[in-house]
Amino acid sequence: MKPFAFVLIFSVLFVSNTCSEVAQKKDPELLQCFHLCRQQQAYSESEKSECREMCRQYIKEKHRRGGACDTKVGETEKEGDEYPYVFEEKHFTSVVKSALGEIQLLQKFNHSLLKAIENFRLTVLVANPRAFFVPVHWDADSVIFVAHGKGTISLVRSEKRESLNVRCGDILRIPSGTTVYLINRDNNEKLVIIKLLQPVFTPGVAETFFGVGKESFFKAFSDELLQAAFKTESSRLHKMFEGSGEPIIEASEEQIRALSDHEEGGIWPFSESKGTINLFEQKPVKSNDYGELREVSPKEHRQLEDIDIGLAFINITKGGMENPFFNSKSINIGVVNKGEGYFEMACPHLSSGSSSRGTPISYRNVNAHVKRGSVYIVPPGHPVITVASKDQNLELLVFQINARDNKRFPLAGKNNIWKQIEKEAKELAFGSPWREVDEVVGKEDEDWFMKGPSQIHQEKQGGGAYIRMKTE
Amino acid sequence: MKPFAFVLIFSVLFVSNTCSEVAQKKDPELLQCFHLCRQQQAYSESEKSECREMCRQYIKEKHRRGGACDTKVGETEKEGDEYPYVFEEKHFTSVVKSALGEIQLLQKFNHSLLKAIENFRLTVLVANPRAFFVPVHWDADSVIFVAHGKGTISLVRSEKRESLNVRCGDILRIPSGTTVYLINRDNNEKLVIIKLLQPVFTPGVAETFFGVGKESFFKAFSDELLQAAFKTESSRLHKMFEGSGEPIIEASEEQIRALSDHEEGGIWPFSESKGTINLFEQKPVKSNDYGELREVSPKEHRQLEDIDIGLAFINITKGGMENPFFNSKSINIGVVNKGEGYFEMACPHLSSGSSSRGTPISYRNVNAHVKRGSVYIVPPGHPVITVASKDQNLELLVFQINARDNKRFPLAGKNNIWKQIEKEAKELAFGSPWREVDEVVGKEDEDWFMKGPSQIHQEKQGGGAYIRMKTE
Amino acid sequence: MKPFAFVLIFSVLFVSNTCSEVAQKKDPELLQCFHLCRQQQAYSESEKSECREMCRQYIKEKHRRGGACDTKVGETEKEGDEYPYVFEEKHFTSVVKSALGEIQLLQKFNHSLLKAIENFRLTVLVANPRAFFVPVHWDADSVIFVAHGKGTISLVRSEKRESLNVRCGDILRIPSGTTVYLINRDNNEKLVIIKLLQPVFTPGVAETFFGVGKESFFKAFSDELLQAAFKTESSRLHKMFEGSGEPIIEASEEQIRALSDHEEGGIWPFSESKGTINLFEQKPVKSNDYGELREVSPKEHRQLEDIDIGLAFINITKGGMENPFFNSKSINIGVVNKGEGYFEMACPHLSSGSSSRGTPISYRNVNAHVKRGSVYIVPPGHPVITVASKDQNLELLVFQINARDNKRFPLAGKNNIWKQIEKEAKELAFGSPWREVDEVVGKEDEDWFMKGPSQIHQEKQGGGAYIRMKTE
Repeated sequence: MKPFAFVLIFSVLFVSNTCSEVAQKKDPELLQCFHLCRQQQAYSESEKSECREMCRQYIKEKHRRGGACDTKVGETEKEGDEYPYVFEEKHFTSVVKSALGEIQLLQKFNHSLLKAIENFRLTVLVANPRAFFVPVHWDADSVIFVAHGKGTISLVRSEKRESLNVRCGDILRIPSGTTVYLINRDNNEKLVIIKLLQPVFTPGVAETFFGVGKESFFKAFSDELLQAAFKTESSRLHKMFEGSGEPIIEASEEQIRALSDHEEGGIWPFSESKGTINLFEQKPVKSNDYGELREVSPKEHRQLEDIDIGLAFINITKGGMENPFFNSKSINIGVVNKGEGYFEMACPHLSSGSSSRGTPISYRNVNAHVKRGSVYIVPPGHPVITVASKDQNLELLVFQINARDNKRFPLAGKNNIWKQIEKEAKELAFGSPWREVDEVVGKEDEDWFMKGPSQIHQEKQGGGAYIRMKTE
Repeated sequence: MKPFAFVLIFSVLFVSNTCSEVAQKKDPELLQCFHLCRQQQAYSESEKSECREMCRQYIKEKHRRGGACDTKVGETEKEGDEYPYVFEEKHFTSVVKSALGEIQLLQKFNHSLLKAIENFRLTVLVANPRAFFVPVHWDADSVIFVAHGKGTISLVRSEKRESLNVRCGDILRIPSGTTVYLINRDNNEKLVIIKLLQPVFTPGVAETFFGVGKESFFKAFSDELLQAAFKTESSRLHKMFEGSGEPIIEASEEQIRALSDHEEGGIWPFSESKGTINLFEQKPVKSNDYGELREVSPKEHRQLEDIDIGLAFINITKGGMENPFFNSKSINIGVVNKGEGYFEMACPHLSSGSSSRGTPISYRNVNAHVKRGSVYIVPPGHPVITVASKDQNLELLVFQINARDNKRFPLAGKNNIWKQIEKEAKELAFGSPWREVDEVVGKEDEDWFMKGPSQIHQEKQGGGAYIRMKTE
Repeated sequence: MKPFAFVLIFSVLFVSNTCSEVAQKKDPELLQCFHLCRQQQAYSESEKSECREMCRQYIKEKHRRGGACDTKVGETEKEGDEYPYVFEEKHFTSVVKSALGEIQLLQKFNHSLLKAIENFRLTVLVANPRAFFVPVHWDADSVIFVAHGKGTISLVRSEKRESLNVRCGDILRIPSGTTVYLINRDNNEKLVIIKLLQPVFTPGVAETFFGVGKESFFKAFSDELLQAAFKTESSRLHKMFEGSGEPIIEASEEQIRALSDHEEGGIWPFSESKGTINLFEQKPVKSNDYGELREVSPKEHRQLEDIDIGLAFINITKGGMENPFFNSKSINIGVVNKGEGYFEMACPHLSSGSSSRGTPISYRNVNAHVKRGSVYIVPPGHPVITVASKDQNLELLVFQINARDNKRFPLAGKNNIWKQIEKEAKELAFGSPWREVDEVVGKEDEDWFMKGPSQIHQEKQGGGAYIRMKTE
């Protein structure tokens, strides 16, 4: 209840909560807050210092909330977590970790601006060569993406088991309650799996149930019931379900061979029929010198239909960028798979004013530098531009929440929406002769991906980029 | 966070929060509250006065909550906002306003009693003759109704634009993310559009994104990205996207002609095929001397199916009334389009008692005088009677949330539910001979609309109204 | 707002809220809290004592929250309400009560752990022989189960009435807004109906609307509107709708005969065609010497499809038990219909740690003794074992929320999931030779129901139970 509590205590202490832009340290409320901590006669010393810590957090939270989109570029670069749309390494916790691999869990999406996705959680699993992850089940539906390497995943469903050899690019829907275990069947490469979970019971909380191991759930039952269930002395049962004690175990060559080559099979390339889809095998939706977009939609793939999640893989060529666009209704959760880059997003003010009035006074620039492992959220309707760094391609895996019937609307480039406005409307809206407008919105004829600022820059130095552009 | 804060601060300050009926000024808690404001050593003078303002609001809120349905008729007539079911002019904010027109936004439905509709917003757009509204998109699905006048609405969807000539009575579903602009194509009449929005991201918040104008979202992007996107100097881009600076612009005769007469067309009467439905062209569901009811349901009209909203237009003849009835599952949001009248609704007590016990101790009369622009909510199950004034017809546009499979159950009039109860059940329930019951519930043979109290009154003065009734 | 308020006031007063296991009385915060109540200068004496009462409740709440699953068996047996999964007689309120019968309403599922079912309510109706319940409607969808006796239920829907003779085992879906009245048509047996409600307006609140009786909703309308609606003097209307004044009335032999034998009929055994399903007529899904499981799923029964609720009836033979299992996605609400027994459930820790980290540090034993009238919740994914007492069969009615595509996964017994894991995986997971594992997980060959601890115990005393098992 603490995070909840601290929001409240300060909602209560401070009536004025305007969205200032001064650095947090300078915020006058901070001193006020410290003062109030001292006052609390009922607090022990430790509680008082905890109170002070909460002052700092409150101020931080205040700036974040008031300013979800209220951060100047400068600030943003300094403090990536000043708004709730970007997550980095520090926002992950290691829930399982050993020399053989780990499972990292991204913090809850519990910001007031993220209500629409508060019932999703993201995890990244890394299995070192020959690592075996013991059987578990979750109280959550999930969609996994194999981001790197080769593995074998076994799904135990009611009266049958399905074992799939998966490889980089495979997508798999795992229904809630399925018992899952997996192995990295490669001797050298890591196996990396990105997973989006949708809890089916407590919103935003996906519990993991280990059948075996130091913490097997069997240990929760009384001895007499365990004995009745298995007709075995409880001491022996405890020993057995404790197993090796570890959630990750190293497998031998033979065990890997056996586990990845079984008649129940689904040995590559037949896994398709066994329920996986490979994102990299999809024909690109958009593709040119500057980047490539592949996607898998819930409309075409039955197993993604009820959960209404689509996946896209975007590879922006170094120095290139995606055209400015917005999604009509889907919320995008982007995970950087490789490379570096940055994005800028136009975000309506969140002053209580605007949210109650519905129309923003203006739009702020939300932006961040992103690299392998960064996660970022793009809400529907919000115009966004993503750019690859000068030296590396930027590879993004995007989960699209509410993907059904979503449309991407390009704001520049070949098919941008402005091109479809009749000339009279253009003149009224832009207040200039339609030819001038077309000269600008009609100039770029690349589709979706285009030259980024760094490339333009070079050309400009090479002289007269724009002229060349026009005559391209 | 303020409105949130003020609920909390006072939840915290006062443990007693009984639902009193004394006038707010007299509430003892008010003084207590002022006292506590003075006490707060950490507050500046301005914060203290803000605190006092919040005391007033808290008391108001307390009375509203405690007494959602707990208001005597007298009070109600004095203070329309003592319960959360009626909204008037003062509950709207002007989000866009100029000499050429305006857009009015109704406050959030954020009362604990309105949870079921908290993710809907209502706006009213008024365009003066020849007013052009610049292109925008919303992060919300919407359904619009043309309440008055003639216009042309353009919808920009992915690779095509659809332009529709609409007129009074037209209904149009606009999916989230669609870029929309419109014009009043009439030289004399105002164009009035009533719009219900369902946000797809932040519940209850529909953000508007202006592509052009003083606040174009393009201004949020850094110059280098804008230049890369449009291959144009940023100064020129800024000038262009600023356009005329205004959200509403006056169009010339020629521009109107061009905008409303284009091959992509959909010129009336072909707009049907182009996606609009006209409510006034529907055959009345109910119709007699006292009124008329037309409706469009999500069952018959595909475009309303997924959003599950129906629309009804009710015209109650002056002096007439709608029979008492309740909806089985839909929540009605009624907007008075023309005329005057009033409604009475039977509303279960909301003492914590009842809501925890599930059955009310009794039912209160919630009622209000309504006129052009009034908005009122009728929850499912709640019996309601709507009456037109003596001198004018009452015209209502009704949005029906969760309309699919909704049924209207008449409690009086020709097909009232009591007529279907077998005589033994009638005698048990009413404790009187079934003939006597039938004499009452069987008397009125008008269907749905009937004489209102004022007409009855006249007849009574004309003597023996009831007898005449019986022999009618 | 009180329950809300008290969570807040103490969230605010105490920053430290660790999940301790000390008995509540010993909690140091309790004294601190009392101290703070004394301090509040703005509080009257009565408010101060109310404040102290809230201290007690807060501590209770704190222990419950922190320790939803954080109770030792000992404690649990002492205090059944230390976690939110079990409800007993004391958690019901009588909303209607007379010598002829009553309606009992279970408290709201308003614990943070029960978010997934917070919009459901449970009631139990008991009608003595010849009791007639007057017509009412609810703003809620509902599913009813006839747990005992014989009755006639009448449903008034738009232009028709449907009257059904129901008997023990019948299931009936009643849509929101349907006017319902019923009678116990038996001269000796009680009629018992268990009902699950899903409100369609205010979450968790199902209002009942009485058309007739002391509190008829007609009384809420002004006289002039009532007169206009019924063309009858209001005095006479008031008298009529007041009826006998009682919600439950005794019917005569003749009235019962007439009400239960009507042409609109649906007289048993034809009620099937009239919309009821009889759970006891379903072929058992599981059945052996130790118990029997019957079920009705939303997949096969259209009327349960949209509400997505399934029903199961489980009869565990005295001394027997259900094998340990978990549901893949449905939440079970179990109601003990007859007999006694107990259950144990493995429940992940809910320390803020775990819920934010997603994986539990360990699992706690949640358990309770249950008897006729007990209600208990089993969340998806949570392994559970249910046991009948030595002397009586345990009969359970189970409502399955989100039943569509739910699967039950047995953790022991004939088809337990461990049997499907290939031997290499077994050896890796359990860290023992696969034969040894199979010896344990393969031993029990009963399907679903099996000998309980008491029976085993006897056999053990009879010597060498386990050996006998293996050779059975």
